[in-house]
Amino acid sequence: MASEKEVKLLDFGVSPFGVRTRIALAEKEVEYEYKEEKNLNLGEKSELLLKSNPVHKKIPVLIHHDKPICESLIIVQYIDEVFPSKTPILPSDPYARALARFWADFVDKKISQYALRVWKLKKGEELEETKKELVENLRTLEAELGEKKYFGGEDFGLVDIAFVPFTSWFYSFQAFGLLSVEDEFPKLAAWGKRCIERKSVAKSLSEPKKLYEFLSARRKVLGVE
Amino acid sequence: MASEKEVKLLDFGVSPFGVRTRIALAEKEVEYEYKEEKNLNLGEKSELLLKSNPVHKKIPVLIHHDKPICESLIIVQYIDEVFPSKTPILPSDPYARALARFWADFVDKKISQYALRVWKLKKGEELEETKKELVENLRTLEAELGEKKYFGGEDFGLVDIAFVPFTSWFYSFQAFGLLSVEDEFPKLAAWGKRCIERKSVAKSLSEPKKLYEFLSARRKVLGVE
Repeated sequence: MASEKEVKLLDFGVSPFGVRTRIALAEKEVEYEYKEEKNLNLGEKSELLLKSNPVHKKIPVLIHHDKPICESLIIVQYIDEVFPSKTPILPSDPYARALARFWADFVDKKISQYALRVWKLKKGEELEETKKELVENLRTLEAELGEKKYFGGEDFGLVDIAFVPFTSWFYSFQAFGLLSVEDEFPKLAAWGKRCIERKSVAKSLSEPKKLYEFLSARRKVLGVE
Repeated sequence: MASEKEVKLLDFGVSPFGVRTRIALAEKEVEYEYKEEKNLNLGEKSELLLKSNPVHKKIPVLIHHDKPICESLIIVQYIDEVFPSKTPILPSDPYARALARFWADFVDKKISQYALRVWKLKKGEELEETKKELVENLRTLEAELGEKKYFGGEDFGLVDIAFVPFTSWFYSFQAFGLLSVEDEFPKLAAWGKRCIERKSVAKSLSEPKKLYEFLSARRKVLGVE
């Protein structure tokens, strides 16, 4: 088990990308120092963040033995490789690994950007288009899940870690009148409930009502409501 | 060595993403059946492509033992894992692997989209902004290369494979009066020349003058010149 000194995580509470790295660290039972970027919301970034991720200047950053690793899916794969003793996050079969990478990448390219934007938009064409893209891509993701327990089959893994942080946002999407995942994507909703039975997920996810309060306040600042 | 029957590549000649997979297969000395998507330029896609990559409907697709793998960087990692006997494409150290993935991802997020768009734009603000982004990001990439032989150090690897296909485009960028990589980024230009000394790269890259003819014809269709 790594000591606190060895592993630090630069993060921001509600970030779904941060949640991914927290789940991976919890799956591997790694102890670490959590360093919240308190004023990220106000556009303020710590010197440590700017020094650790000079290219993108974004959280999360994992610092392991003073060396920074950036980009959440890359961090999760790093955690899997460097702490191999616990449950693997990626399967051992190369084809199954490629599929896991493909669907995690799909979440990044086709879900994240729409999910992180849809709640910020005022009524109008842009909102409708963003919602449509999000719904279509959730449909593709639900079809991929099908009747499986997790995206990779019986074992919780990379794609689950990539997507499960967004389940905290479902409550807000419904409350803002955008989308009911429960009604439209019952398999994704049921999968989300299975995931949260895992301790690693339960302790890492944003609490949906707290996230709703946070997003509501942001919507007021942005003049959406 | 894999037999022709085992490995197929669905590809399109000038695609930098296709070139990546061709280099990786050549590095591993894998024999394969090359299947050109002849009319991709006209928006026509083969049934095999639509069946093999129903999500993105894009080349390249590697088909190995009848199972499709999509997305060029994922394909390159798959090739590295499934044909481990030849020179490795990713280093064995987890931190070096994370860095390789980070910079390959940087090429995808911060170079590809601008490089693939800049030559299509008419004079104006959008062209200037696209050029500015491309130049800034090439500067970041050149700083990362520094005095190293390859991006990973002494060994040719993932980041080299991710970026080297774009070196074929440098001639066109200069001919179209957009950017002289030779003048502005001499280290990247010298690195490109080192890469092309490798047989795997030399035989996979688009020939710059042929690419120029192809792009010129496209520019005429698009009304850029």
